[in-house]
Amino acid sequence: MTKNDIKEIQSLRQSKGRKERGIFAVEGNKLVEELIVSDFRVNNIFVTEQWVGKYPVIAKKVADYELVTPKQMEQISNFVTPPGIFATAVIPKYIIEPKDTESQAVLLLDGINDPGNLGTIIRTADWFGIKKIVISEDTCDPWQSKVIQATMGSIFRMQIVETDVVKFLKDVKAPVYGALMQGKNVYHTHISDNQGVIIIGSESHGIRDNVMPFISCPINIPRAEGSRTESLNASVAAGIILSEVFRKNI
Amino acid sequence: MTKNDIKEIQSLRQSKGRKERGIFAVEGNKLVEELIVSDFRVNNIFVTEQWVGKYPVIAKKVADYELVTPKQMEQISNFVTPPGIFATAVIPKYIIEPKDTESQAVLLLDGINDPGNLGTIIRTADWFGIKKIVISEDTCDPWQSKVIQATMGSIFRMQIVETDVVKFLKDVKAPVYGALMQGKNVYHTHISDNQGVIIIGSESHGIRDNVMPFISCPINIPRAEGSRTESLNASVAAGIILSEVFRKNI
Repeated sequence: MTKNDIKEIQSLRQSKGRKERGIFAVEGNKLVEELIVSDFRVNNIFVTEQWVGKYPVIAKKVADYELVTPKQMEQISNFVTPPGIFATAVIPKYIIEPKDTESQAVLLLDGINDPGNLGTIIRTADWFGIKKIVISEDTCDPWQSKVIQATMGSIFRMQIVETDVVKFLKDVKAPVYGALMQGKNVYHTHISDNQGVIIIGSESHGIRDNVMPFISCPINIPRAEGSRTESLNASVAAGIILSEVFRKNI
Repeated sequence: MTKNDIKEIQSLRQSKGRKERGIFAVEGNKLVEELIVSDFRVNNIFVTEQWVGKYPVIAKKVADYELVTPKQMEQISNFVTPPGIFATAVIPKYIIEPKDTESQAVLLLDGINDPGNLGTIIRTADWFGIKKIVISEDTCDPWQSKVIQATMGSIFRMQIVETDVVKFLKDVKAPVYGALMQGKNVYHTHISDNQGVIIIGSESHGIRDNVMPFISCPINIPRAEGSRTESLNASVAAGIILSEVFRKNI
């Protein structure tokens, strides 16, 4: 591993570096194991000798790795205490068509900006069988370390497409549900699980004004009488709505 | 504000310092506003002149503050960019009796260790009208900055008691629900909203072995057929379960 290699890999910490190279990084046993059994194209897997000694079974499974020194590992890792296994993989280019929403429920995230929330939403969507997530261009970059960690590996099973969501929604013919402060009580609303778009807005300002006109069915999670909480966390709200969508089937 | 004052306040960053003094810190406009309208006893409110200039209306509402220099604010703040308003308040000493579970649903957290998850669970519980949360001694300290931030102020409306949960559960006569990997489908289970205990276990190892015998009704959030996700995030799971408890009433 040359100094230049290290620099290249360090550049993957920034969204710009990832976009330019079309590559992202994955760290830790569980995540790298999930990566290698996924459809993602793995570029490199770096491990330390200490790691191989500690996890011989996983090392055998991973097989195709390069040894690096503990110092090199520290330089490329996103962690103060590196887990000892670090992979790079190609950012997949999926396509989600407006037509797809006629045969499956698609999640659309409009400006989620907390990496933990984004990762948790991807994990929850995967739990409930969602296959495709459209994210707006101002949603935080899903290929950053914090998001990937929070997905617990679900990101390797999810088709995520960043796009101009207004353009996308223009051609959607299926119902469009939006989680709003005012809307139909989600507990009394039928949300289809085999068609449509479910929109979750940003943590601070919700769904944007230019997305609003596309919502054919505004939905709301009512709070208990007397509660003075202003809102739910975005990933909890997404979880409750997805649970409502799928509860009748499972 | 003397050097000693600053040291005292800085000690509130550690759980030990907070426990010794019985005091915790709250920062930022929204949280301090929520604090002063709550039943909590406020000790001090520190603001900078810049902050007063920027938020004259809030300053008038807060009224009883002390001015500190920007440098002092930086020294006491938990943030790289301090919001400019910093309060200290007394950690409340609530009592939750096993008998309380006979007239209301009580949440019990067994070893939640991520501050963001704990804060989000408190926020969600407040949304759904839960008034009391019992936390095990190994649950992370709710009076730390990250938890308080994540509650968005709900912590000031919630009765939280840290206790020996095994001792507590021994005297509970109401139903005890536990979120487990194996259990009754939560969508087909009646969970009472006016009695009982709902237990959420830790992110990494779930509900502990010595708590298990007290669960009279194990519940489970089923995942979609074909999904390979191993688990849900603890705060999302708590949100879905609380939503199921209260959905019939709201």
